[in-house]
Amino acid sequence: MSIREATRDDFAHIWPIFQEIAAAAETYGYPRDVTQEQALHLWIDAPRKTYVFEENEQVLGTYYIRTNQLGPGDHVCNCGYMVSSAARGRGIATAMCEHSQEIARALGYKAMQFNFVASSNEGAVRLWNKLGFSTVGRLPKAFHHPSKGYVDALVMYKWLDK
Amino acid sequence: MSIREATRDDFAHIWPIFQEIAAAAETYGYPRDVTQEQALHLWIDAPRKTYVFEENEQVLGTYYIRTNQLGPGDHVCNCGYMVSSAARGRGIATAMCEHSQEIARALGYKAMQFNFVASSNEGAVRLWNKLGFSTVGRLPKAFHHPSKGYVDALVMYKWLDK
Repeated sequence: MSIREATRDDFAHIWPIFQEIAAAAETYGYPRDVTQEQALHLWIDAPRKTYVFEENEQVLGTYYIRTNQLGPGDHVCNCGYMVSSAARGRGIATAMCEHSQEIARALGYKAMQFNFVASSNEGAVRLWNKLGFSTVGRLPKAFHHPSKGYVDALVMYKWLDK
Repeated sequence: MSIREATRDDFAHIWPIFQEIAAAAETYGYPRDVTQEQALHLWIDAPRKTYVFEENEQVLGTYYIRTNQLGPGDHVCNCGYMVSSAARGRGIATAMCEHSQEIARALGYKAMQFNFVASSNEGAVRLWNKLGFSTVGRLPKAFHHPSKGYVDALVMYKWLDK
């Protein structure tokens, strides 16, 4: 397995993962019916860098890193992670999150923020907690879950600087 | 006085206000040395709508409204407000914030969120509190203030639906 920087050509392998997660609408603030063009912009072009997690030349996961706010906020990055449904429960999100923290430090960021974690996504919240992130905000009914209705979204944060 | 939707032609009058506020770097997550082109994108093109506050055909303030997160988050909007330094303390921010809440309701939004309020900007925090916003998040040292150093940034939120 390896985690390497993605090229635009990798998008063909990222798109099925992205589309499935957007359509489920349980974890990300992306449109359910997102187009390939929108996804390419959101995941590859707009972020500062994008990575893929590969095993036997198969893309099983991907993440992006971007500056969360410009100017006085540009020392804080934001990341998003996606794992193929067939490859979940194998520690790929953990590996990518740890990798992203190393990349963040190398790029000079002092903190990492997740802006919009559905509180119903308990596995993710538990994982980010384990990896050192704290819940620093709770947005009441900000996430419209397809089966649970309006649930709170969390803001999670980790200071990276030693 | 009036508040009306801005056109791209209004940008010439918005730009001096924007540039002064970005250069001060005390309140917004924008680059200090922002270019006109970036500002036009951030304030006019990227948001859903932009408004100006006018008095005697002079632009004294401006605000934008945008969808804060897509898909499961698209019922929550985000706004940003700027008032010309010569016109502060006259209730223009209050008038624009109240106007923006009416516009938000008319556009179908159920809540309004401010993502990045410098905790050092005590006047703004007091004003948003007075207008019904609660502090729902505190981002430790997320705002690098030019004279105060790293200060917390606040996430503020108001449910608009009756």
